[in-house]
Amino acid sequence: MGQTSKNIAIVGSGLVGTLLAIYLRQAGHRVTVFDRRPDIRTIEFSGRSINLAMSDRGWQALDGAGIGKEIRKMGIPMHQRAMHVNGKPVYYQKYGKEGEAIWSISRGILNRKMIDLAEAEGAVFRFNEKVWDVDLPTAALYTGETEKGEWEAYSFDHIFGCDGAFSRIRHKMQRRSRFNYSQDFIDVGYKELTIPPNPDGSHKLDKNAFHIWPRGSFMFIAMPNLDGSFTCTLFLPFEGPVSFEQLQTKEDIRAFFTEYFPNVTPVIDNLSEDFLKNPTSALVTIKCYPWTYWDKVALVGDAAHAVVPFFGQGMNAGFEDISRLMALMKQFGDDWERIFQVYQEDRKPNADAIAELSYRNFIEMSTRTADPDFLLQKKIERNFAQQYPEKWIPAYSRVTFSEQPYSEALAIGDRQEAIMKKIMEMPEIESRWDSPEVSQRILELLGDS
Amino acid sequence: MGQTSKNIAIVGSGLVGTLLAIYLRQAGHRVTVFDRRPDIRTIEFSGRSINLAMSDRGWQALDGAGIGKEIRKMGIPMHQRAMHVNGKPVYYQKYGKEGEAIWSISRGILNRKMIDLAEAEGAVFRFNEKVWDVDLPTAALYTGETEKGEWEAYSFDHIFGCDGAFSRIRHKMQRRSRFNYSQDFIDVGYKELTIPPNPDGSHKLDKNAFHIWPRGSFMFIAMPNLDGSFTCTLFLPFEGPVSFEQLQTKEDIRAFFTEYFPNVTPVIDNLSEDFLKNPTSALVTIKCYPWTYWDKVALVGDAAHAVVPFFGQGMNAGFEDISRLMALMKQFGDDWERIFQVYQEDRKPNADAIAELSYRNFIEMSTRTADPDFLLQKKIERNFAQQYPEKWIPAYSRVTFSEQPYSEALAIGDRQEAIMKKIMEMPEIESRWDSPEVSQRILELLGDS
Repeated sequence: MGQTSKNIAIVGSGLVGTLLAIYLRQAGHRVTVFDRRPDIRTIEFSGRSINLAMSDRGWQALDGAGIGKEIRKMGIPMHQRAMHVNGKPVYYQKYGKEGEAIWSISRGILNRKMIDLAEAEGAVFRFNEKVWDVDLPTAALYTGETEKGEWEAYSFDHIFGCDGAFSRIRHKMQRRSRFNYSQDFIDVGYKELTIPPNPDGSHKLDKNAFHIWPRGSFMFIAMPNLDGSFTCTLFLPFEGPVSFEQLQTKEDIRAFFTEYFPNVTPVIDNLSEDFLKNPTSALVTIKCYPWTYWDKVALVGDAAHAVVPFFGQGMNAGFEDISRLMALMKQFGDDWERIFQVYQEDRKPNADAIAELSYRNFIEMSTRTADPDFLLQKKIERNFAQQYPEKWIPAYSRVTFSEQPYSEALAIGDRQEAIMKKIMEMPEIESRWDSPEVSQRILELLGDS
Repeated sequence: MGQTSKNIAIVGSGLVGTLLAIYLRQAGHRVTVFDRRPDIRTIEFSGRSINLAMSDRGWQALDGAGIGKEIRKMGIPMHQRAMHVNGKPVYYQKYGKEGEAIWSISRGILNRKMIDLAEAEGAVFRFNEKVWDVDLPTAALYTGETEKGEWEAYSFDHIFGCDGAFSRIRHKMQRRSRFNYSQDFIDVGYKELTIPPNPDGSHKLDKNAFHIWPRGSFMFIAMPNLDGSFTCTLFLPFEGPVSFEQLQTKEDIRAFFTEYFPNVTPVIDNLSEDFLKNPTSALVTIKCYPWTYWDKVALVGDAAHAVVPFFGQGMNAGFEDISRLMALMKQFGDDWERIFQVYQEDRKPNADAIAELSYRNFIEMSTRTADPDFLLQKKIERNFAQQYPEKWIPAYSRVTFSEQPYSEALAIGDRQEAIMKKIMEMPEIESRWDSPEVSQRILELLGDS
């Protein structure tokens, strides 16, 4: 169904805002993108970014706008996880089947490119313009230098709030009665660091892997960039015996890295300087409902559902919001009330599911990776999945390498977990974990339910 | 330990703000109370209030300030619940042991009195003065006519946010990183109505009872006032087959009451007029943490922990916050940082527990009261409690007629629930529910754990 051309505002020029701008321009709408920050193409990056892991949902949305091919040039496929355990050789785990990979892309570099592409489609960007208020029933935006100063008013047909976890648009919706909302911070923060390229421009570690140094309650990760560098992230509790709080001086930092990450410490660029210079950032899960106000305003991406980054799905989930919105616009044409209503009803359970899956991955990584029972269970699952690939698709693959709804992936993951609980209770499971009886029992349990 | 006199601001002149003002004045502090609304002594009530059910925690806090005796004159003790089921005689349930009662008090009348009492202690009230911003590190308040207009700045040593569920002070804390927050609305709203006195000033229903007309997904309650009237509350879903949404005209309202509440309909004052005039209000559970900012700012009462009203504990919990704060001030003297830290650590689990207990009561009332198994279980519990009053104190009594921490009351309630689950699985429990074997089994299960 065709749509009448509308005058649309997007608040936020991040990845979700720019991709939405591209789609809406392609659908024939007038699009103005507001951002309170300067044009990211004109400034240095913040030093607080985690590299993106683009997976199937993200690619589907980019391909749908005809820009997937161009963006793939900016990324590096990572086919496997490289686990770094002190005193042992690097241990590799394939992410999926042959050819399946997640793609490492620099958030800042991609964002710059997406703004170029949206501008090329005809979207108008208004950087350094701070939105202070929104009138929901009339889709009016109010901007100005300061909250207390003079404001300019803009009228639109529709407004999309793509302004991230601390969305100003959501903030206004939140003051209404019957708006459910939660923000939950975890006690772990993160800090960006960098491994520079070799002098010849090559990568210092295998570039087609996601590198991880798991250390129980904390971990270090590294993801490759095209220029030969790695963007690294240290995840560490804010407080406690091993924590950001304890790392105040260059000596503290040097000693910490030497003890826990000896194989990577020598190659990190300006370790102590960057550590002290780059901010320590917090991680939050944000849930809310409703996501829309009549046919006037809709939240998309982190503004509606911020998740912790441990499944690498935050941006992918935001891009999938857009795919869904576009499909509904095709289906319902000018009935924007229906588009927004079905959008939020469809996406909310999936957003809740990826929030839960992301949080569970955090718990799993921080508390279960040292548990022998957990490692045995994972070994049994992998063994069975290799024998019966059709019958046991791991939750990771469902989330990362398919477009199956997140809520189904979560439900099937729960069912698999219940089956494995029974398997782990089998007598002498430690010694016969790869025996035919175990596989047979899994098959039975799968048939049961 | 004595305290140096401080300059303290309280934001909010409701019940919690005024009681705190009384205590702080008695402790020798200078106290200014800000409220964005007019002096409640000078205006009509809002028509959106549920009468208070003052119980032990509330009385303890009032007695501690030496005003319990005076406030008792304003209330009516309710010793029992009066259940109104259509076509059956009114059925009474005692709340507790002989002499135990909850007290019905009009929120508005009590609030007026508390302001009088706080003024008499020397607290300064600034009504109609809107707080728009607070600077947390310096304990400065900014007030003015409008958010965008001229503001006046005030400096204090400490600020208490007693400004209710939609607290402006908390709102500012919430914009900080690592502040956890949730607001969850239930799908049931409420509306205030009134049963006027008889012409001779007497009550139309038994005045020493809490009257309840349970109807599954909705209910009507009535609580007595000194003037012979009852303040009534209709709790009803916002949407659905039987809901506020369906009651648009005087005829709708009349038909609804005639069908579901025939014995009370004739005596409600101006039923349709009041129904259409009084607002339909929403019910929310609010949780957050931290409650304090260093030694500067603390949230008290609903601002820190709003609960749904189905346990009648919202105000009691807020008053108990004050009792705890005052005990800590005695203990730690001028160490306000410690006072605030221990306050929030102590009270947070108890606030979470009463939120959970209140929400469970809502679920219980709206879905379980028609369930024969549930009614049988309650009968068994009452029977056992009568035989062994020391061994089985119902959660209701622990919450209402003791100062046991809410978190302990919740934990013991969970344990009782687990025991009753096993009892309800006993064969032929329906026919031998009052047999000695059942009591014996409960005793065993109590001994087990």
